[in-house]
Amino acid sequence: MSQTVELKVDLGERSYPIYIGENLIGDTGAYLNKHGFKTGSPILIVTDETIAPYYLDTVVNSLRSAGYTVVTHIVPAGEQTKSLSMLEAIVTTALTGNLDRNSAVIALGGGVIGDLAGFVAATYMRGIRFIQIPTTILAHDSSVGGKVAVNHKLAKNIIGAFHQPDYVLYDVTTLRTLSPREVRSGLAEMVKHGLIWDEAFVDWLEESASKLLNLDLDALKYGIHQGCRIKSVVVAEDERENDLRAILNLGHTIGHALEAVAGYGELLHGEAIAIGMVGASLLAQKLGYSSDIYTRTKALLQKFELPVSLPKHYDVDAIMEAMSHDKKFKEGKMVFVIPTAIGKVEINRNVPAEWVRETVEQLKGEA
Amino acid sequence: MSQTVELKVDLGERSYPIYIGENLIGDTGAYLNKHGFKTGSPILIVTDETIAPYYLDTVVNSLRSAGYTVVTHIVPAGEQTKSLSMLEAIVTTALTGNLDRNSAVIALGGGVIGDLAGFVAATYMRGIRFIQIPTTILAHDSSVGGKVAVNHKLAKNIIGAFHQPDYVLYDVTTLRTLSPREVRSGLAEMVKHGLIWDEAFVDWLEESASKLLNLDLDALKYGIHQGCRIKSVVVAEDERENDLRAILNLGHTIGHALEAVAGYGELLHGEAIAIGMVGASLLAQKLGYSSDIYTRTKALLQKFELPVSLPKHYDVDAIMEAMSHDKKFKEGKMVFVIPTAIGKVEINRNVPAEWVRETVEQLKGEA
Repeated sequence: MSQTVELKVDLGERSYPIYIGENLIGDTGAYLNKHGFKTGSPILIVTDETIAPYYLDTVVNSLRSAGYTVVTHIVPAGEQTKSLSMLEAIVTTALTGNLDRNSAVIALGGGVIGDLAGFVAATYMRGIRFIQIPTTILAHDSSVGGKVAVNHKLAKNIIGAFHQPDYVLYDVTTLRTLSPREVRSGLAEMVKHGLIWDEAFVDWLEESASKLLNLDLDALKYGIHQGCRIKSVVVAEDERENDLRAILNLGHTIGHALEAVAGYGELLHGEAIAIGMVGASLLAQKLGYSSDIYTRTKALLQKFELPVSLPKHYDVDAIMEAMSHDKKFKEGKMVFVIPTAIGKVEINRNVPAEWVRETVEQLKGEA
Repeated sequence: MSQTVELKVDLGERSYPIYIGENLIGDTGAYLNKHGFKTGSPILIVTDETIAPYYLDTVVNSLRSAGYTVVTHIVPAGEQTKSLSMLEAIVTTALTGNLDRNSAVIALGGGVIGDLAGFVAATYMRGIRFIQIPTTILAHDSSVGGKVAVNHKLAKNIIGAFHQPDYVLYDVTTLRTLSPREVRSGLAEMVKHGLIWDEAFVDWLEESASKLLNLDLDALKYGIHQGCRIKSVVVAEDERENDLRAILNLGHTIGHALEAVAGYGELLHGEAIAIGMVGASLLAQKLGYSSDIYTRTKALLQKFELPVSLPKHYDVDAIMEAMSHDKKFKEGKMVFVIPTAIGKVEINRNVPAEWVRETVEQLKGEA
């Protein structure tokens, strides 16, 4: 039997464990039990139409065998499902299913489901307990930190809360149903965690890229463990996002702008931040840091078969305009996460907007 | 110049002051300044159509004179305004008004506005700061404790959060626009605070009923101060509503059921809990506590011109049915807050449901 790793996210009273292992979802009921959930209060599972056919029955059966009453709510897949009207619909399910203060909400799915189900848990009866069962690699990022939210038609993630889960059950065998493109996109955040914090982990990522792309379970367990560990250390030092936590945005300033101007489905999140991380390494060069950062970042992302250049048809003005909405502009200067070495970054509040424009232009030239 | 009283609600890191005085809303800008709010971030005022004509200009002008940018959102008055769609509309105003993480939401109004605006503040960008300017006596209750929420079509206050204000600015001169019936209803919660905690305050209430009913400003300041103080002591010991905080529900089990079965506008909240408090004192008698509790409770409420009996047309079965939804039934027993003396209560988990039915019947006989 393969080993399950336990990682503690250290947040004082709100500390919680992340269990990373194989075939864990069949033990969902046992884990609830271990965490003191009583069978008298119904458990609500929120999942989406893509995930449900693969894993919902396993989770439901495990809970029922352990004596729990289960209520399920299946939402359409995709970012547009993170809305207040979906919150209202799920609360209807919760109320008719008699969820009480001792109930829990289980998020079975990727980041969208984690955000939505987490916000339900954060607000139902002013907050009930919450468990994450991530089914994507990308969710190794969103399952640490407690940020939950829904979208508003004018802005993403603008209505939300900080609500830490009771625990995260990360079953790497569920990652086998991801498409290769989703795998690569998820690994981009793993690379980011290495680049901001840990050169030794970057060394390992360079060696292990093909294993990870081929969904080798031991490699996935190790990579997810390290990615979660790095994020949890950063979050533990800055739970409410004041300062240090901003380093997690490496590649995201340009990346978010690319996502905003791209056509629907054109760029996955990880693809956009891969291009953004190359951008940040180009800015590092302009700021006088070693050009090795750029070379090694780009080569690493290429090993993961991630995009490192901007397709020619992207409009630079539109990208710059999108970045200005990010409220990181201030008097011609921008706030950027800049790599200062491999495994080290700084928050730089003095990046001339003109350099950012040059960088975006340069990204079109990258092969 | 009259004196402003400052009461500290002691919640560790989340402690905040309540300022109680006269003509304070004209100093709204100065108070924001004193609390360190920078003029660079817009301030959102949420109020309702009833309050706006009286006080909105004063608050806006005070803020503008102090250099703040002000955004306002006026909602219809009444409980039905506490909805997710209203939350969405207010967030639209916040986004178009460029509210940022350093902005604040001001709730200018009664409990409904405090709940709604507070939930906007709790969730906008995952939580920004929040200031309460109550304009009702009833809000002396809701402005302490940090409970904010909106309603769902199936349940009141079911989607919400705990979000403490930065401070409360209680301007007793704004209470002059309340109708006599709203004054009486608000004073019912003040009486409740005396009955659960402080016999000396009950003595004062017995002496001061007519001053309070006539909106004597000194009496209002003292009464609101004591009511807020008692609630804040209870909340400080039990911020997340585990146990002690339940004593604040004296009169509310029966009261909520009466509100649920009453026609729209038939019973104000304070009127319903006044009848509920008489009911609790009748139950105390059945449980063997002194009948003086009943006599004095009823006489006190009558001094405040509050109802102490149930109109004959109320259906006892419907009231019992409404109480069963309160989830306080358990195997024929109910959880009740029972007065054990004047100024003292207990949580009793063994009240036979049959006694509750008898009590509701008896309430119809009270003259």
